[in-house]
Amino acid sequence: MGETDWIAVDWGTTHLRAWRMSGATATAQAQSDAGMGTLTRDGYEPALLSLIGGWIGDGDATVVACGMVGSRQGWVEAPYGTIPTAPLSGHFALAPTTRAGLRVHVIPGLRQNHPADVMRGEETQIAGFVAQNPGWDGVLCLPGTHTKWVHLSAGEVVSFQTFMTGDMFAALGQATVLRHSLGGDGWDETAFQSALGDSLTRPERIAARLFSIRAQGLLHGLPAGPARAQASGLLIGAELAAARPYWLGQSVAIIGGGTIAGIYDRALASVGLVATVTDGTAITLAGLTAAHTLVKETT
Amino acid sequence: MGETDWIAVDWGTTHLRAWRMSGATATAQAQSDAGMGTLTRDGYEPALLSLIGGWIGDGDATVVACGMVGSRQGWVEAPYGTIPTAPLSGHFALAPTTRAGLRVHVIPGLRQNHPADVMRGEETQIAGFVAQNPGWDGVLCLPGTHTKWVHLSAGEVVSFQTFMTGDMFAALGQATVLRHSLGGDGWDETAFQSALGDSLTRPERIAARLFSIRAQGLLHGLPAGPARAQASGLLIGAELAAARPYWLGQSVAIIGGGTIAGIYDRALASVGLVATVTDGTAITLAGLTAAHTLVKETT
Repeated sequence: MGETDWIAVDWGTTHLRAWRMSGATATAQAQSDAGMGTLTRDGYEPALLSLIGGWIGDGDATVVACGMVGSRQGWVEAPYGTIPTAPLSGHFALAPTTRAGLRVHVIPGLRQNHPADVMRGEETQIAGFVAQNPGWDGVLCLPGTHTKWVHLSAGEVVSFQTFMTGDMFAALGQATVLRHSLGGDGWDETAFQSALGDSLTRPERIAARLFSIRAQGLLHGLPAGPARAQASGLLIGAELAAARPYWLGQSVAIIGGGTIAGIYDRALASVGLVATVTDGTAITLAGLTAAHTLVKETT
Repeated sequence: MGETDWIAVDWGTTHLRAWRMSGATATAQAQSDAGMGTLTRDGYEPALLSLIGGWIGDGDATVVACGMVGSRQGWVEAPYGTIPTAPLSGHFALAPTTRAGLRVHVIPGLRQNHPADVMRGEETQIAGFVAQNPGWDGVLCLPGTHTKWVHLSAGEVVSFQTFMTGDMFAALGQATVLRHSLGGDGWDETAFQSALGDSLTRPERIAARLFSIRAQGLLHGLPAGPARAQASGLLIGAELAAARPYWLGQSVAIIGGGTIAGIYDRALASVGLVATVTDGTAITLAGLTAAHTLVKETT
């Protein structure tokens, strides 16, 4: 009870989350905004210790971390494993530390050479899904800034494809004329579904349909809610058209929480596909636990 | 010789250009970076006078201006003309001034109600093209931040469509993960043509093919030149696929100068279309001259 076996860490570009683990059970959680984007190389150890110092005291500590912390610009580079492969098959990297007794194992991402593609962090979620669903064959959809579609078979990642749909949506709202149109948090499901259907059929029109959102604002007073929903529908519609070989006639599991998982779920429903939705945090913890088991076996 | 009949002005979001005109001939030129984006409403008159003050001395002065200066956020709003219409058919607006004898006529843009679309500045270039090519029927392509495709018949704009291709290209390089990939000024024509062809055929893949540029950099060391050319080819390929009803079997004139006009010219050549390319500045001056003639007739 309250014992610290090891520490699980999810460390991305914009966030750092840590869990105190007793076996496969989280007994405490902490987080900060000390993501990779805010850190120089010597900032990682203090950022981590400021979160977990109270859990580990002066004793030895084993940390298992996934995400951009293992990229070339991260704490230590954990070279990609190459698909087809099991999700945790690359070489774990040991981060350089100054505190005695602290061992930080960093999980490697996955690479696909042709077409060129990479992931870092999602491989851990995939491992968590495999641990919770042994023998499952099908397709995982991991929505986010860089949404991944992953073909999983016999516990191995067979192929994957990344769409920078979320990254493009954010950039449209920040750095194009649509910054005047996409502010606020509103939504309009009818506008989303309509734009989604248009874009599934005519994805090439995306740059014209996006500009038309601005023109609808100028000429017809289009509010931010339907504007955001239209832009999202246009981008996700084109993505679904391209990802058709992944989802058509397949078992699809969406991994993730919150608004974006719901949007993908409804988008897939509109093309007649019933997906399952699995909470991203639980899956990440299951994957980090699987990785910890590997670390114990090999050290 | 050197006489100032009137002043022609092209005033966009990021630039201000003025010409001292004697009839249809420019006898001097001046420019600054005092675009709409840098100005509050009471900043327009001083910005203009700092450029043209030496030309007009203490006398009366007639100025004819096109561009975003006539937008809602500009010096004075010049309400859009509605297509189908001749390019200069809206109501010119008179900007509020404090200097005695200064009259600034602002050219209105054009609107299309369905699908919603707008232009401001391009209508003047279209008028210039019509003045130089009376009786010409066909399609104009005006490449830029918001590229316009315009169907012109019997001197009237029949329909038009805006693609925010240039705006998206800039945003990808500034505000997405591709900021690591698209820096610098390099180019690779083979990479451009290959991406263009792919995107013409499979435009829905754009968000995946764009992410793959980043992955090619991480995995295969792709340099900035081919990266930029790929991204441009992907965006323009999707645009050409959508704009096919505009260019297929049509006479197409590209209005504009420099790198971007050449890129569109080569892109159209790759689909078997021989376009003409007309210098944008000369066309703008011809359009402002046509507008000045209208101003003289109605005042």
